[in-house]
Amino acid sequence: MISNFNFYLPTKAYFGKGQIAEISMAIPKNARILLTYGGGSIKKNGVFEQVQNALKEHFYIEFGGIEANPEYETLMKAVKLAREEKLDFILAVGGGSVLDGSKFIAAAVPFEGEPWDIPYKKAPILTALPIGCVMTLPATGSEMNHRAVVSRRATKDKVSLYSDLIRPQFAVLDPTTTFSLPARQTSNGVVDAFVHTLEQYATYPVNGKIQDRFAEGVLLTLLEDGPVLLDNPTDYDARANVMWAATQGLNDILSVGVPGDWSSHAIGHELTAVYDLDHAQTLAIIVPALFTHQIEGKREKLTQLARRVFYYQGDDTQAAEFAIQQIRIFFERMGLKTHFSAMGIDDSQFSLVLQKLAEHRPRFIGERQDIDQAAVKRILYMAL
Amino acid sequence: MISNFNFYLPTKAYFGKGQIAEISMAIPKNARILLTYGGGSIKKNGVFEQVQNALKEHFYIEFGGIEANPEYETLMKAVKLAREEKLDFILAVGGGSVLDGSKFIAAAVPFEGEPWDIPYKKAPILTALPIGCVMTLPATGSEMNHRAVVSRRATKDKVSLYSDLIRPQFAVLDPTTTFSLPARQTSNGVVDAFVHTLEQYATYPVNGKIQDRFAEGVLLTLLEDGPVLLDNPTDYDARANVMWAATQGLNDILSVGVPGDWSSHAIGHELTAVYDLDHAQTLAIIVPALFTHQIEGKREKLTQLARRVFYYQGDDTQAAEFAIQQIRIFFERMGLKTHFSAMGIDDSQFSLVLQKLAEHRPRFIGERQDIDQAAVKRILYMAL
Repeated sequence: MISNFNFYLPTKAYFGKGQIAEISMAIPKNARILLTYGGGSIKKNGVFEQVQNALKEHFYIEFGGIEANPEYETLMKAVKLAREEKLDFILAVGGGSVLDGSKFIAAAVPFEGEPWDIPYKKAPILTALPIGCVMTLPATGSEMNHRAVVSRRATKDKVSLYSDLIRPQFAVLDPTTTFSLPARQTSNGVVDAFVHTLEQYATYPVNGKIQDRFAEGVLLTLLEDGPVLLDNPTDYDARANVMWAATQGLNDILSVGVPGDWSSHAIGHELTAVYDLDHAQTLAIIVPALFTHQIEGKREKLTQLARRVFYYQGDDTQAAEFAIQQIRIFFERMGLKTHFSAMGIDDSQFSLVLQKLAEHRPRFIGERQDIDQAAVKRILYMAL
Repeated sequence: MISNFNFYLPTKAYFGKGQIAEISMAIPKNARILLTYGGGSIKKNGVFEQVQNALKEHFYIEFGGIEANPEYETLMKAVKLAREEKLDFILAVGGGSVLDGSKFIAAAVPFEGEPWDIPYKKAPILTALPIGCVMTLPATGSEMNHRAVVSRRATKDKVSLYSDLIRPQFAVLDPTTTFSLPARQTSNGVVDAFVHTLEQYATYPVNGKIQDRFAEGVLLTLLEDGPVLLDNPTDYDARANVMWAATQGLNDILSVGVPGDWSSHAIGHELTAVYDLDHAQTLAIIVPALFTHQIEGKREKLTQLARRVFYYQGDDTQAAEFAIQQIRIFFERMGLKTHFSAMGIDDSQFSLVLQKLAEHRPRFIGERQDIDQAAVKRILYMAL
């Protein structure tokens, strides 16, 4: 049976070529804007210029240098700046890391106390600065959701915060801003969005037909148009479809009323913290192993996945195995590795991974809460 | 190519059994509520009692009797009441007609001038009372969109209004409230939602993969679970899936960036006005004839529909014809007629239908704007 749910998706999306100009109207004219971005690629690909043109009548202060898996130490510099300059609106321009970092900043600026408590101790967010974004890397779905993930390298922590108050008011999604992405970032984004969708789909069936069909639609779109981008990075339609797929992949429309897994993400976050691997790369390694370990509990949905998404025609007995095999093939087609060994990683730090996971997730994980430390250890070895 | 679009879906949905209780928190405690409903079925099926319990601390005045294809004369009585009593919030409890009528009331109460100008002359809506709803008949998608259709029987007009200001702030969707629906209303709702989806899908391809897959998901859900409801009206999952499918069918998620047709609705509205046919019944008659008339322009999408939704395995040459045949079979399976003659209607008033259509739609209709008066006349005769 489908569970009761609330669905709330108030972020306004401006989708298409040239839509960055809309931020001029979307942000109040009297706002004092903190303009956040990452490594500076937006200054080379024309995005920053479009933002500048749109903000000609606005006051803003730049804060660049937010890194992948945004770092607490970096973000706290922005918090200090925003407090000193009494900034009251955040415009994030970049990918999921810039946006997630900006969500943390938005919650941290008015927070009384140590802001790290927000993600680490789940301290409640009572107020936050409003956020808008120009999303230039389809992947995380952060542009239309209420969550963020931040990291603290000194303690090898990668933890989440959640609140409707950090959901962007608007999101500009211009597919042409992604034409110049490096292939690795494109691939990571496609795999990340694909795994988000699997986390909400490959669990156990509750007969949520809209949720299932929409998830299959996101998966099919990524399967079809992800590889197109490797061969033709400036294919507008493929960029547009991947971008909109990534947004739908994690804006709650797939998750409402149905169980979620998220164990691959839980383990993957620890792998990024310990090995500094790309987020998507951790998922590509963990998902095939985890699904193989959990195959009986996921068999019904994996069989449905095999038939509806991978066009499997055989009998049911091998359908789930087929689906896992096809997922692995897809990740490798996108250029990612699906074993630790292919990344030069052995088992020597698995105990640290397990220790940090126990610290962040003291209870069992998975949609049935049946994955314990011993199971995670087996999954890590299966992924070697 | 996918067109630029803005996507905005701020209505909060409370979905599931017992969720009517949420309106207690969703409506401000100091609101003066106009509680609108239809023929009174909500007083027999327990819905009204749940609403009363939720509104124990609120002030409200009832206004019942809003009919199917809500009538201007009726709605203006509610407008008068709301003005006299200085009501400032509308809670609509019922199906699409109650909600559409309530949207008109919401816009009409503060309107200076003749409120009929809003739908008839498209007079701009500058302000409106806030609306919430308890949706008890999945069909129109009105619970999460910004449009409404109202009728004036004296002049045989059935016309639309649009504004973000008349979009409900919240929508309660409790599938158990639909258990007691008469079979005819259940069937009408399923067919209405199915045709909404076709209007946004069966046009020409622009490679909007998410939009296409989501639309196919809505169609498949209605095809699978619509007939279930005829045999088992209290199947919770099927009621839930049909309800959520109808909401997705017309909340803009299927339409953004892709062409829309809406010619079946344009013609259907005239048929309801002239013959007083149920809205869905007009669509069931018109769609097969219109799609047959327009088959060349729609061939690519109808072929995709045949393969992905009706599991057609033959060659492309007859795929579109197969899809139209299957649509007709589905409408008849749901208990609707697909020819005028089956409703005892001959061609004697076709000229009036054409005259009213010309009045409301002076330009061509259809996704290519290629359906003129002569084409509509041919379509009407094809539907005899």
